[in-house]
Amino acid sequence: MFSIDLNCDLGESFGSYSSGNDAEIMKYITSANIACGFHAGDAMVMKKTVQLAKEASVKIGAHPGFPDLQGFGRRQMVLSSEEIYSITLYQLGALEGFLRSHSLTLNHVKPHGALYNMAADHAPSAAAIAKAVYDFDNSLIFYGLSGSELTRAAESFGLNVGYEVFADRSYMPDGKLTPRTHEKALISNLDQAVNQSLQIITKQTVTAIDGTVISMKGTTICLHSDGPGALELAKKLNKELKSAGIKIKSLEKEAS
Amino acid sequence: MFSIDLNCDLGESFGSYSSGNDAEIMKYITSANIACGFHAGDAMVMKKTVQLAKEASVKIGAHPGFPDLQGFGRRQMVLSSEEIYSITLYQLGALEGFLRSHSLTLNHVKPHGALYNMAADHAPSAAAIAKAVYDFDNSLIFYGLSGSELTRAAESFGLNVGYEVFADRSYMPDGKLTPRTHEKALISNLDQAVNQSLQIITKQTVTAIDGTVISMKGTTICLHSDGPGALELAKKLNKELKSAGIKIKSLEKEAS
Amino acid sequence: MFSIDLNCDLGESFGSYSSGNDAEIMKYITSANIACGFHAGDAMVMKKTVQLAKEASVKIGAHPGFPDLQGFGRRQMVLSSEEIYSITLYQLGALEGFLRSHSLTLNHVKPHGALYNMAADHAPSAAAIAKAVYDFDNSLIFYGLSGSELTRAAESFGLNVGYEVFADRSYMPDGKLTPRTHEKALISNLDQAVNQSLQIITKQTVTAIDGTVISMKGTTICLHSDGPGALELAKKLNKELKSAGIKIKSLEKEAS
Amino acid sequence: MFSIDLNCDLGESFGSYSSGNDAEIMKYITSANIACGFHAGDAMVMKKTVQLAKEASVKIGAHPGFPDLQGFGRRQMVLSSEEIYSITLYQLGALEGFLRSHSLTLNHVKPHGALYNMAADHAPSAAAIAKAVYDFDNSLIFYGLSGSELTRAAESFGLNVGYEVFADRSYMPDGKLTPRTHEKALISNLDQAVNQSLQIITKQTVTAIDGTVISMKGTTICLHSDGPGALELAKKLNKELKSAGIKIKSLEKEAS
Repeated sequence: MFSIDLNCDLGESFGSYSSGNDAEIMKYITSANIACGFHAGDAMVMKKTVQLAKEASVKIGAHPGFPDLQGFGRRQMVLSSEEIYSITLYQLGALEGFLRSHSLTLNHVKPHGALYNMAADHAPSAAAIAKAVYDFDNSLIFYGLSGSELTRAAESFGLNVGYEVFADRSYMPDGKLTPRTHEKALISNLDQAVNQSLQIITKQTVTAIDGTVISMKGTTICLHSDGPGALELAKKLNKELKSAGIKIKSLEKEAS
Repeated sequence: MFSIDLNCDLGESFGSYSSGNDAEIMKYITSANIACGFHAGDAMVMKKTVQLAKEASVKIGAHPGFPDLQGFGRRQMVLSSEEIYSITLYQLGALEGFLRSHSLTLNHVKPHGALYNMAADHAPSAAAIAKAVYDFDNSLIFYGLSGSELTRAAESFGLNVGYEVFADRSYMPDGKLTPRTHEKALISNLDQAVNQSLQIITKQTVTAIDGTVISMKGTTICLHSDGPGALELAKKLNKELKSAGIKIKSLEKEAS
Repeated sequence: MFSIDLNCDLGESFGSYSSGNDAEIMKYITSANIACGFHAGDAMVMKKTVQLAKEASVKIGAHPGFPDLQGFGRRQMVLSSEEIYSITLYQLGALEGFLRSHSLTLNHVKPHGALYNMAADHAPSAAAIAKAVYDFDNSLIFYGLSGSELTRAAESFGLNVGYEVFADRSYMPDGKLTPRTHEKALISNLDQAVNQSLQIITKQTVTAIDGTVISMKGTTICLHSDGPGALELAKKLNKELKSAGIKIKSLEKEAS
Repeated sequence: MFSIDLNCDLGESFGSYSSGNDAEIMKYITSANIACGFHAGDAMVMKKTVQLAKEASVKIGAHPGFPDLQGFGRRQMVLSSEEIYSITLYQLGALEGFLRSHSLTLNHVKPHGALYNMAADHAPSAAAIAKAVYDFDNSLIFYGLSGSELTRAAESFGLNVGYEVFADRSYMPDGKLTPRTHEKALISNLDQAVNQSLQIITKQTVTAIDGTVISMKGTTICLHSDGPGALELAKKLNKELKSAGIKIKSLEKEAS
C-alpha cells in the first residue's frame, strides 16, 4: 500500500500581521513546518501554532529561514557555511522551546524560501543545514527538494530524509522545478495536480513539461497555507489520494 | 565550609560589534549567562561563547532579555505575561540548540537588564519567566535578585534558585539595591566589594547604606565582563574569597 | 461655516504582510498619517502609500512610532527624551525622502500608538517630539490628542496644531478618552459617532460618559483604515458631515 | 594645482556598541559618509555624528546600505531595483532629518559594503541607487568606485560624480580592485599607499599589480575609521599630500 506525507508551511503570521489559514489547512495535512521568527513568525505565533498542530495531531517540524522579515526569507542572502549552520541551530532550538512546554518533540526540519532554494543547488550550504540538524538531533527527518543537494546532504549525514515533491509545480526534464518565470511553472488545474501526485506516489515518476517521463522519488508533498486555491487544493488532494487508496500519513523517524 | 557561585553575563557581542572580555573573565567565574540574540548576541556569537564556556568548564545559563538590541535590553518595555513567557521560552530554546551540538545541557536562567529589573518588582512578570523556565526544564536553576519577586516566583514554582547578590552595588535598608542615580549606588573600592561579599557569604547579612545590618541570602555573585575595573574585580574577588576559605563553585541542580 | 479635517493612519503594511484598506479609505479622508518603518511600514510600502495619497490629493503626514514592529508600536517603551527626539527626526526624514521624489512636502506629524499615548500624559516626551518636528520644519502641523501634553507641547513650540478628536471613542468628564478597558470606551453606533463629531465641530463641546457636557476643541477627526466598520464609519461620517454643511478639508499650515 | 577629497565611513556605532575612532579621524578628512541605520548606526548615533562632522567642518554624505545589521551590510542580498531604490531614498531622507536640525544640507551619497560592491558590477542596481539620489536632490555628489557601473550610472543621470580610489588597495590591469582574497590586495606599506595616491592625483594613472600602468580617474580617496593602521594612514596621507602641494578639499557640487 502506498503512503504519502502532506506538509505545509505554517505559523507565518507576525505580531499584529496575520498570514495563512493555519487552523483550516491543519485538517488536511500530516506535517506542519513552523516558521521560527527569522523570515516570519514570532514567539507568540510559534506558541499558538504548536498548540494548533498538537490539537490536530499534526507532526511538527522547524522551518528555518534567512534573517529577513521584510523579504519573508525569499531574498537571496550570501551567508557563510558557519552562519548558515548557526542560524539553523538557533531556529531549531527556538522552536524546541515551545515543543518542550507541550512535552512534544521535533519531528523534522525543512528550510524556507531562499535558504531552501539556494541550498538545493549549493552543496556546502546544504551540508551546513544538514550538520545543524544532525548536531541538534540525528533522528530528525530532513525535508528537501527531491533530487537536490538538500536531500543528498541529508543522505550523506545519515539523516532520515523527506523527499519533497510538488503537486502544483511542473518539472523540467532534468528533474528540477520549472522556474516561476516560465508560463507553465504552475499547475493550476486541480485534477492535473492530483494526477501528478498520484504518478509520483505510485510510479515514482513525473512527466516533465516537454513530455519526458523521468524518475521522481517523493515521500512528502508540499501544500500551501495561503494564496488563491491553497485550501481547495489541500482538501481535494487529501480526498482524492485517499480515494485512490493512498494512505496519508506522516513520515517515520527510523533509528539512525 | 562556605561556598559561592560567581556568575557573569557573556556573549554580548553582536555581528561585527565586539563587547566584553569574555575569554579572560571566563577564568574567574563558575557560571556564564549567555545572551540569546534579543538584547545582544547572535547565533554566531552564541556558538562561540558556548564553546568558550565549555573549554573553561564554566556552567552555561541562558540570559534572555527584551527584544531591543538598540537599547541593549535596558529600556523598559511593557509586555503582557504571555509575551514575556513566550520570548523567554524562545530564547531558552535558541541557546539549547548550541548546547546540544556540544552534548551539554542548560544549567540556569537569569533574565537580563530591564526584564530582570521590572520582574524583580512585578510578580506577574516574574511568574511568567519562572513558568517558561519550569516548562522548559524544571531542573534548571533560576537566578534572580535575592529577596525579589524573581526569587519568590522561582520558589513558588519549586525551581532551584540562585539568590543573586552584588559585590559592587550597595543595598538600602529594605534590602533593595540602591538606585544607580544615588551617589553611593556603586562600590568602586575593591576591598569594600570583597568585604561585602564575605559578609553576605559567611553571615548572610549585608550592611545597608545607612549602616543598618540586614539579612541577605546570597548564593551567587554577579560580576561584569565589560567596563572599567570589571576584570580586576573578578580576579580580586576570586582570589580573596579563596584565601578566606570560601569554595568557588557553581550551584547544584537538585532533584526537583 | 464649519470645517473639519479627517485623518487616518495608513501605510501600515510590512513586507509581504498587508494591513488596512488604504486605497479605499483614501477617498473619504483629507490627511494621511503614513507609518515610517519603525512600528509598521517599510521603504516599499512608504513609496506606494505616498503615491496613493498623491493621487487622492490627500495631505501627507508622518506617523512616527516606537521601534517595535512585533508590537506594532503599541507596547510602552521607556525612552529618554533624546532618544524620542532622535527617532522622531529619523522617521520624519525617512518619509521626506519619498515626498521629495514626488515634489511633495510634508504637511503634518502625528505620533503613533504607545508613543502618542505616553507623550499625551508626559510633558517631556511630548516636548521631545515637538522639538523634533520644529527642528525638521517649523511650518508643520503637529497632531495630538486635544487637550493633552501633545497639543500643549505643540503650542509651546509655536507649531501649527491639529487638535485631534475621536468620533468612535467616548470621553470622560476630565476630557480624557475613556480607557479601552471600560465597557463604554467605544462608540459602535454610527449615528452616535456622527452626532459626537457634529457636537464637537459645531459647539466645541462633547458629552462625557457621565452626561457632563465639557468643552472640547477639535480640528481633526481620527479615522481607521482597518478593523470592522472602519470603512463604513469613514463613508458615513464624510457624507453626514457634508450634509450638515460642514466643509471637509485638510488643516492649513499658517505662517509660523 | 591638484586637489583631492579624503572621505571616510563614519557613524557606524550602534546602540551600546561602539565602532570607529570618529572624533579623531574627522581631523584628517574632508567628507564623512554617515551610516543611516540599516547596516550600522542608529538615530542617536546619526545625531551625534552629524554634530561631530559639523564641528570639524567636514562635508556630510549619506552612506546607505543593505538592511543587515548582523552582517554589517557586507553580505550580498539580492534585492529588486525597486527595493534598492526605496531603501536608498529612505536612508537619504533619514539622514536629512539630522542635517535639517543643524541647518545643514546633504553633500553626497556613497553606497556601503555589499550594496556598493554589487552595484559596481551590476548596472540596474547602480541605476536604482543613482535614480534615488537624483530624485532626492539632483545636486548631490554620487560617490562610486572609479570606472564602475556606479560612476557610469551617476554620469548617466547627470549627477556630480565622486570618482573613488583607494590608497591601500591594489588594482588589477583591468582597473578593478584586486580581490581581498589575493595576497597583494592590500597595500600595508604607508609610503606605497601615499605614492599610489600621488600617482592617481597627479598623473591620473595607477600601476596595476602586474606592473601595467593604466589610467585611473580619482577625485576622492577612501580612508577607514577602524582597524589597524587606519588612523595612521589618514594622518600620513593628509600630511604627505599637503607636502606635495596637493590641496585637500571636499568636492564641489556643480550646478546640474
